[in-house]
Amino acid sequence: METPSSSGIKTAAVLVIGDEILSGRTQDTNINYIARFLALKGIDLKEARVVGDDQGQIVAALNALRGSYDFVFSTGGIGPTHDDITADAIAAAFGVGIGYHPEAYALLEARYGKNEFNVMRRRMARIPRGATLIANRVSVAPGFCIGNVFVLAGVPAIARAMLEALAPQLPEGPKVHSVTITASVPEGRIAEGLGAIQSAHPDTAIGSYPFYREDGGFGVQLVVRSRDFASAEAAALAIESHLAMFGVAAQRAI
Amino acid sequence: METPSSSGIKTAAVLVIGDEILSGRTQDTNINYIARFLALKGIDLKEARVVGDDQGQIVAALNALRGSYDFVFSTGGIGPTHDDITADAIAAAFGVGIGYHPEAYALLEARYGKNEFNVMRRRMARIPRGATLIANRVSVAPGFCIGNVFVLAGVPAIARAMLEALAPQLPEGPKVHSVTITASVPEGRIAEGLGAIQSAHPDTAIGSYPFYREDGGFGVQLVVRSRDFASAEAAALAIESHLAMFGVAAQRAI
Repeated sequence: METPSSSGIKTAAVLVIGDEILSGRTQDTNINYIARFLALKGIDLKEARVVGDDQGQIVAALNALRGSYDFVFSTGGIGPTHDDITADAIAAAFGVGIGYHPEAYALLEARYGKNEFNVMRRRMARIPRGATLIANRVSVAPGFCIGNVFVLAGVPAIARAMLEALAPQLPEGPKVHSVTITASVPEGRIAEGLGAIQSAHPDTAIGSYPFYREDGGFGVQLVVRSRDFASAEAAALAIESHLAMFGVAAQRAI
Repeated sequence: METPSSSGIKTAAVLVIGDEILSGRTQDTNINYIARFLALKGIDLKEARVVGDDQGQIVAALNALRGSYDFVFSTGGIGPTHDDITADAIAAAFGVGIGYHPEAYALLEARYGKNEFNVMRRRMARIPRGATLIANRVSVAPGFCIGNVFVLAGVPAIARAMLEALAPQLPEGPKVHSVTITASVPEGRIAEGLGAIQSAHPDTAIGSYPFYREDGGFGVQLVVRSRDFASAEAAALAIESHLAMFGVAAQRAI
């Protein structure tokens, strides 16, 4: 199911920026949310990286990802405090200057009022040259887009609002159809037939995900993915026949 | 607080392998768990990457990470099914052969019995040459260690059991002390003083994490981290004085 950019399918990467993810303080949820957002657009998320609040690390990762994929979505590091260094790092990665963006400045000044719009809050109006703003209906301070990079906040509610705002800018591609079959069988018992089914259905990607529940229940979720609905359906039916041959109860999760 | 490897502080990276993370089907929790495990060992997690079930991607990411950090922990792709390609990819990354590991083979044969130890389950005994096994008390199939790379299962309960098994092999370094102060104030109001406190306490890393609750509550968590307990404490006291000056109620989360 590999779909290189030349096929017309767009690819993307996520770059999560923040010491709090690497220290274990914070469980990231932005990668998963962006993955599901991109799936609905028909864009393939191909890679994600997490780096700390370190300009060298951010620049290196950003330049690697923006050169390899059609779009990059970063999260984190665009607030008012000293540890928010993403805008400067992005400007450095692109080799452009950075300064107050008049529209961002005006939005933030209106939000805080002249008296409360202090020097640190003004930092949130510093945007790399040539970037366009991404609206933030939660806390006003905008994200921005430069080249093929979308720079979002780290707070999940704000990152989500920014995705909603930028969505119309993204192309829509053919979506991946996904069929999930849950079966109460150890995956190793059915694995040989499953491999044969994968070989016979090269337009699909079949994933096998075992689970172990605390109540002692176990089994496997078999996930068929394809941009061609009929191919996905044919592979799913082949899996169901295979399971029936083993006398295994199975059900689809739609 | 940058602590290069030459300081004696060990560094690590996590490589998550699996289409299910990038499709959005599965919320990864292994990065966060490994981050907290490493923090307790005094090892700095510096980077994490997520790639799909694709040998080229796995090899490229693995070789980049193992060359940059003291340790790499991979998760995912070591089961019995066709989509489990991690062991082969790791062998390719190291340029070594792969074959049945006698001890792994014996363990798995004993687990399944000769009749149920089919060709696909035998795949789980295929280990790159020169690797040593990592015990798995949950489902027997072992992980392995080769060079500075620890190869773990993707199922969280099994990844955790493998970490427990390999823990004695890891060095113990000085741990990072962390003080968290929660305050009901917008971070932008206290940001200037906070930046000054960061500058005055260079042995610490001070992170500022705003939060917005659904009930309308908002505020900030200020996290001071340092390998020197007295430095962390001094910076935390400076932050508490700063907050008091603004008349902001604050409390430590210990």
